Amino acid sequence: MTEKFDIIVVGAGVLGVAAAYHLQKSSPNKSILLVDSQPEAGQANTAMSAAAVRNMFSSTTNQLLTDSSIAFYRHIQEGLGFDLTMHMCGYLWLLSAGQFKAPSVKMWMQRMEKSDIHYQVYEQEELQKLIPGMTTKFSDDDEEAQLMNLNNIDYALFGSECGVLDPDLLVKFYKQEFIKLSKVKPRFSLPVTSLLLEAKPSLGLPGEPYVWQDKRVTGVRTPKGDIHAETVVLAVGPWTNSLLDPVGISSFVKAKKRQLFIIPASNHPPLEQLLFTKGFSKAGFLPFTILPSAGVYVRAVPEEKSFWIGCADKVGRAYKYVMEEQDYKAERSYFEESMYPVLSKYFPAFQNVRPVNSFAGSYCYSFDALPFVYEQAGVIVATGASGSGIMKADAIARMADALYRGEKETELYGGQKMPTTALTISDRQVEVERVII
Amino acid sequence: MTEKFDIIVVGAGVLGVAAAYHLQKSSPNKSILLVDSQPEAGQANTAMSAAAVRNMFSSTTNQLLTDSSIAFYRHIQEGLGFDLTMHMCGYLWLLSAGQFKAPSVKMWMQRMEKSDIHYQVYEQEELQKLIPGMTTKFSDDDEEAQLMNLNNIDYALFGSECGVLDPDLLVKFYKQEFIKLSKVKPRFSLPVTSLLLEAKPSLGLPGEPYVWQDKRVTGVRTPKGDIHAETVVLAVGPWTNSLLDPVGISSFVKAKKRQLFIIPASNHPPLEQLLFTKGFSKAGFLPFTILPSAGVYVRAVPEEKSFWIGCADKVGRAYKYVMEEQDYKAERSYFEESMYPVLSKYFPAFQNVRPVNSFAGSYCYSFDALPFVYEQAGVIVATGASGSGIMKADAIARMADALYRGEKETELYGGQKMPTTALTISDRQVEVERVII
Repeated sequence: MTEKFDIIVVGAGVLGVAAAYHLQKSSPNKSILLVDSQPEAGQANTAMSAAAVRNMFSSTTNQLLTDSSIAFYRHIQEGLGFDLTMHMCGYLWLLSAGQFKAPSVKMWMQRMEKSDIHYQVYEQEELQKLIPGMTTKFSDDDEEAQLMNLNNIDYALFGSECGVLDPDLLVKFYKQEFIKLSKVKPRFSLPVTSLLLEAKPSLGLPGEPYVWQDKRVTGVRTPKGDIHAETVVLAVGPWTNSLLDPVGISSFVKAKKRQLFIIPASNHPPLEQLLFTKGFSKAGFLPFTILPSAGVYVRAVPEEKSFWIGCADKVGRAYKYVMEEQDYKAERSYFEESMYPVLSKYFPAFQNVRPVNSFAGSYCYSFDALPFVYEQAGVIVATGASGSGIMKADAIARMADALYRGEKETELYGGQKMPTTALTISDRQVEVERVII
Repeated sequence: MTEKFDIIVVGAGVLGVAAAYHLQKSSPNKSILLVDSQPEAGQANTAMSAAAVRNMFSSTTNQLLTDSSIAFYRHIQEGLGFDLTMHMCGYLWLLSAGQFKAPSVKMWMQRMEKSDIHYQVYEQEELQKLIPGMTTKFSDDDEEAQLMNLNNIDYALFGSECGVLDPDLLVKFYKQEFIKLSKVKPRFSLPVTSLLLEAKPSLGLPGEPYVWQDKRVTGVRTPKGDIHAETVVLAVGPWTNSLLDPVGISSFVKAKKRQLFIIPASNHPPLEQLLFTKGFSKAGFLPFTILPSAGVYVRAVPEEKSFWIGCADKVGRAYKYVMEEQDYKAERSYFEESMYPVLSKYFPAFQNVRPVNSFAGSYCYSFDALPFVYEQAGVIVATGASGSGIMKADAIARMADALYRGEKETELYGGQKMPTTALTISDRQVEVERVII
């Protein structure tokens, strides 16, 4: 006596709830069970994000995925009146002259122009006027700056169609809309420990499935028993490997720890001034700002009157096959030794100010920093969002739904179309992403 | 007091010894240390291979890598007089009419024609004459065949520029030639436990390298102490992840167990007759033969008067992040339940005959079944050969050498050229391989 549904969506992070919603909307008569190991939706890595959204990618595919998803999120907030605390504060990429002129940045700019992604170039003088407290040029005898390989800020690329939002609210939207349509109540605090792989048809012999049998994932194993489904949708980010590898379904993703440190701006007038930097957008606060060195970035959180400081550390930060408990703890020494020195050189207002809080989560990287969305043996896999899952969740979910319905093309929000196989392993049609933070 | 070399090549499997040889040949004045955890070269997965070589791939890149490598191996044996017990017995892909007409097989054939890879099509009648003991058509009331999804054999693709060799001899060749050129004696039974990642320049502070420092792999850690090098070449197949992940260098490969079962043909006249099947090639024995169902293949070993039986199991066979001890033990039940039923249906001569021996090793898969050859932070990585490392080792080694020397193009044996970045992660230029066994 096991339960059976048409679809089980494993993972109620932003990708999972968005997929559940689009699947149920397209197939109203299908029974869809959404399960997650956490007590509520969006509580794992979705909650640990810097929660910024940008369409400023170098890969045309990533541009399309994000641009259409961001447009849908604006529609949720402005059209449907569901507040996501989404602000179009923009993204500000600070660059040295050398970086600005690098072929990879030129290509990035050209590809954005081709895709009609709006951005604007600022030069040093103008930047200095807009952000008076920012160090744009280190003096020639600044030994610290030299030691830390700090680039001057000669240019910036500013993308106005980028911003920030609250991923918890976005998850709430999708979950609420899914629940309105679905006949099946989502189940939380229910971990999926493995996928059930069965011979089709089964002969009921020990040792099945044999190599000569057709095989299909027929459901999931949980501590409360097996649950069967025609199709399993897997949206579990950095846990993808541990569910797919045992059944021999390809998944080539790696986890990487990402941490954010919260610095309050209240009671620090220079920081408050920086936080509410005007002149870039109507949002009236500092854009999501990426420093030209060391991968350090600054996210203003006006509701909290605080900054979140993050860092895209590359070589030197371990990749993980499975996340361990320590990967969900931010390291104070990392802030002190690696991020603070850089941050306080570019923004002296941060000098001697320390984080009051921190959090850590995990990215789920693919080799080319584009998501994987593919079907194999009854499993639709959506993974490898590579740190930009929130900003492309809607598009990824629509692709998963199109895969489920066997549609050759996926219509994204706004009407643009993509081949539904574009993000598969076997028919991948993408440009490798080069603008990764 | 640590030792220092120009290059350390980690891994003395076929990729490692070939890389050491080509690097030393191109850079005679560089000191190159070859290290391996095993007591001799080629004793890990290289020794566990079916040891067949083919240029019959669907990806143009794989065609080029294998075709040029096979040509070099022929040159070793025929030109340099170093016996590899290489026989051009050919590859015989048995196909049903449905398989033969599938778009993926048509594309395979077209791409081989375009690349001047010679193959010939056999039809059922001709095949039946050449291999009288083979079942090409199952009767309509053969319930076993139906149950096992066994395809009839309607066609075959035969590639004459394919064959078999002894990988141990190939490893010996490269190792011997490397030793002739090298000033440094290879070290065996010396496992590399981790890569050394250091800040450049180092400040000698605790917690280095920090995020704002330039970082580079400066050597390897072994139980006998650290060994430094300007460049580390990593050719460790399924152990790639465990060395690269901790230092945060990208590696997106997975291991998968592969096993071979040895069945003697002596004292079994029908098997001996099958073994010495004439008519396909001058080699005078059965080509490397892939059955049209379940991924089972048959490799004749005329020197031993035996067959090696293998199977390319896909879904259902676990991917592994790291290989475990049990992954190096062949499973008798796997032969009995999965391979034997298929094998004995197509070749009744195998009925009631059982393996006298078996061995197991590991493939190292990339997502697209093409190798990765790239440089990051002082490490040149050659990995992900996806089960065809022996047949493309020479080309991969030449690419690693070209990467080391900063050459934009790699000249393969025979003079054909490839962009040296073609197999990198960031500038990958390949067609996904579809013909995987």
